[in-house]
Amino acid sequence: MGRERLLIIGGVAAGMSAASRARRHNPQMEIIVLEKGAHVSYGACGLPYHLSGKIADWKDLIVYTPEYFREKRDIDVRLHHEATEIVPGRKLVRALRAGSVPVELAYDKLVVATGGAPTLTIPGADLHGVFTCNDLAGTIHLREFLDEKHPSRAVIVGAGYIAFECAEAFRSRGISVTILERSDAPLEDISSEIAAQIEGTLARHNVAIRKSSAVSSITRNESTGELHLHHASGSEPADVVLLATGIAPRCAFAEAAGISCGTTGAITVDDRQQTNVPSIYAAGDCAEARHLVTGKPAYVPLGTTANKQGRVAGENAAGGNARFAGIVGTMVTKVFELEVAKTGLGISESRRSGFSPDSVTITSTSRAHYMHGRPIVVTLIWDRASERLLGCQMCGEEGVAKRIDVAAMALHARMRVPDMLHLDLSYAPPFAPVWEPILIAASEAMKKMRRS
Amino acid sequence: MGRERLLIIGGVAAGMSAASRARRHNPQMEIIVLEKGAHVSYGACGLPYHLSGKIADWKDLIVYTPEYFREKRDIDVRLHHEATEIVPGRKLVRALRAGSVPVELAYDKLVVATGGAPTLTIPGADLHGVFTCNDLAGTIHLREFLDEKHPSRAVIVGAGYIAFECAEAFRSRGISVTILERSDAPLEDISSEIAAQIEGTLARHNVAIRKSSAVSSITRNESTGELHLHHASGSEPADVVLLATGIAPRCAFAEAAGISCGTTGAITVDDRQQTNVPSIYAAGDCAEARHLVTGKPAYVPLGTTANKQGRVAGENAAGGNARFAGIVGTMVTKVFELEVAKTGLGISESRRSGFSPDSVTITSTSRAHYMHGRPIVVTLIWDRASERLLGCQMCGEEGVAKRIDVAAMALHARMRVPDMLHLDLSYAPPFAPVWEPILIAASEAMKKMRRS
Repeated sequence: MGRERLLIIGGVAAGMSAASRARRHNPQMEIIVLEKGAHVSYGACGLPYHLSGKIADWKDLIVYTPEYFREKRDIDVRLHHEATEIVPGRKLVRALRAGSVPVELAYDKLVVATGGAPTLTIPGADLHGVFTCNDLAGTIHLREFLDEKHPSRAVIVGAGYIAFECAEAFRSRGISVTILERSDAPLEDISSEIAAQIEGTLARHNVAIRKSSAVSSITRNESTGELHLHHASGSEPADVVLLATGIAPRCAFAEAAGISCGTTGAITVDDRQQTNVPSIYAAGDCAEARHLVTGKPAYVPLGTTANKQGRVAGENAAGGNARFAGIVGTMVTKVFELEVAKTGLGISESRRSGFSPDSVTITSTSRAHYMHGRPIVVTLIWDRASERLLGCQMCGEEGVAKRIDVAAMALHARMRVPDMLHLDLSYAPPFAPVWEPILIAASEAMKKMRRS
Repeated sequence: MGRERLLIIGGVAAGMSAASRARRHNPQMEIIVLEKGAHVSYGACGLPYHLSGKIADWKDLIVYTPEYFREKRDIDVRLHHEATEIVPGRKLVRALRAGSVPVELAYDKLVVATGGAPTLTIPGADLHGVFTCNDLAGTIHLREFLDEKHPSRAVIVGAGYIAFECAEAFRSRGISVTILERSDAPLEDISSEIAAQIEGTLARHNVAIRKSSAVSSITRNESTGELHLHHASGSEPADVVLLATGIAPRCAFAEAAGISCGTTGAITVDDRQQTNVPSIYAAGDCAEARHLVTGKPAYVPLGTTANKQGRVAGENAAGGNARFAGIVGTMVTKVFELEVAKTGLGISESRRSGFSPDSVTITSTSRAHYMHGRPIVVTLIWDRASERLLGCQMCGEEGVAKRIDVAAMALHARMRVPDMLHLDLSYAPPFAPVWEPILIAASEAMKKMRRS
């Protein structure tokens, strides 16, 4: 009789969280992690800062090495192992080692943590000089390309947070940047006032953004080496291209094994991270999460959620009984000096989810007026019928990142806007104005509600 | 028939908030504010920053002038009017104008917003060179004294947030500082780990703190002009003394008129800020507030609460129906570079309130490890029986002030610690670590709960 074996597919945030938590919960179990790449356990959200050189050595992004996991935690990390097939009936996983050697591994419990893959599949996406910034290997290649070729013109496809963070990295290296975005706004479902702040900030840093410019293909002029991005209203030349249009769950091979995916395309899980197939759990960017505002499964791939879901999956796979509470969709990013944050639903998302949303946007400041606070813009979104808070968006050059958490907490607590008028939030002149921006927004929202 | 008259006693945070809100709610009403001092509507929390010179001109602390209120808001502000008697049976208030001229004013509705007064009444508190920093006039005098006399040794009596903020102001002017504190800790009911951080920071800035040193009297050597503070274990010489032992509600004359005060000593109000006497409201530092953790009236005099209560009192006095939600006791202060924040109950307060508290303290960081975050210390306090969060305390050199608000929101929502494990809080490497410090504290708290 061997030890019970936990097999984990994927060794970044969710996978390694699952492995570590399982080990803490169960000192006996055998734990094997299959990772298709050359690295595990790295801070994927820090990748743009390796491009800029702010994190000079990519090794600083590594939290723990495979050796550490092996020696200190008795976790058997196998790099360069790409899982290709799950056979639930026989409880085994087939994989390719180093791209060609087939291996088979039995499991008692399985955690699928295969993450996400870039969504954009256009002709030319595989050309030399075209990169993504979704994993460590891709980012190392891009950084090497920048160091060696010294490109002068970058084009970024997509206008999400990775696009902005990489735009800053490119500009810090003196590279000109053009962003091509297929929709008519930077960041999905953001208020027009915050969109204007983002666009103003990009303009100040000489980053061009062309909206409504879906890229259909990329070609390369073989004589000059120049890349060309073809879009609705023309074409854009580039020396280097970054595809930053977001990711989709990497779960086709799980689906092939009979593991159910939801309408979001990601793996369906219950609050124990259990899939529909016995003994198989899923966590992180390949899985759905319950959105606490809509009450429905959502796909919001973020590192924080991956870590939490990984812990829950690992604990349960090791015999525990943990439950994941769900998400409210909180994110923050830095567009040069502008902090931009969002939680809950935007107006369009609210409508799609069956709410009847209304919103206000106010401008306040980060500190007392006599302490030279910086402006903060707040958009508050609520449901007309129930007066319940649905979402909040903020931007400003100071104090935004952690202020959004008050709105996230209000969503967790299912607060109505009238419940938010007198929240007892911290105040001292160096840190806040006497009326917190979100309280001013709630007060304005109340006026609008009472008028209508 | 004249207009209905709202009379407000006190013209700082609560009083002027009441006046402004009443005017917005009721354009007809006559509104008169009696202020005993020479100024209304100033940022009292900014006073220590006038001492340091960071706010060079005290006029920058003024939000609106009496002229502004008169001309723009039709609010009749009368300076140098000290209310001395309320006669509810005849609905009138007696006051002294300029310290000697008796005046009588009838009211239809009355808001008492008389604030607080320094608690310490020891022999010598009235000596030249002994100051408080509770109101604008006192602070202007202190600043003038510093500018003219260039004292070299300051002694501060009390170790609360005003003491720390003024200690920084004194040090920035090159004045040596000794703090004499009657209890055995800096800040009331703070965890020993956070107390140690505060004391370490004070030491690094050459501020001596002598605990268990209740001051019994102050004397003056008439030949040298030197002040001496006599305490349990000796005496401390000083060129300037700041009394910063906190404030007590200024409500003796309200009590004399039959307005009830609670066990806290402050005026008892319902959630409409109504006192026990018809047509009389109270708000701000003279009034109690319901503490949402204990469910009982509490006295936590802070500017934010004064503003909120003032609005509620003003709206109701003007015929509205607003309700104040209550407080959770959130505060933040700056001890030189150290941000120190607190919400809810401390361990001793929890015990006194009938809970069975337990706590954990953890150290985490303000940002991702590879972004050079600064340490943040978090103490989480919960009730053993219900596992409900009772309070949270934090300190660190970055990102503390607005992080405490997550705990404040958890208290507003009456969350249990198990509800806090997976809060969806914002994350990006420049702003936060992937596991927020408060989530790590909640996780450690769970371990401790499950062990016991």
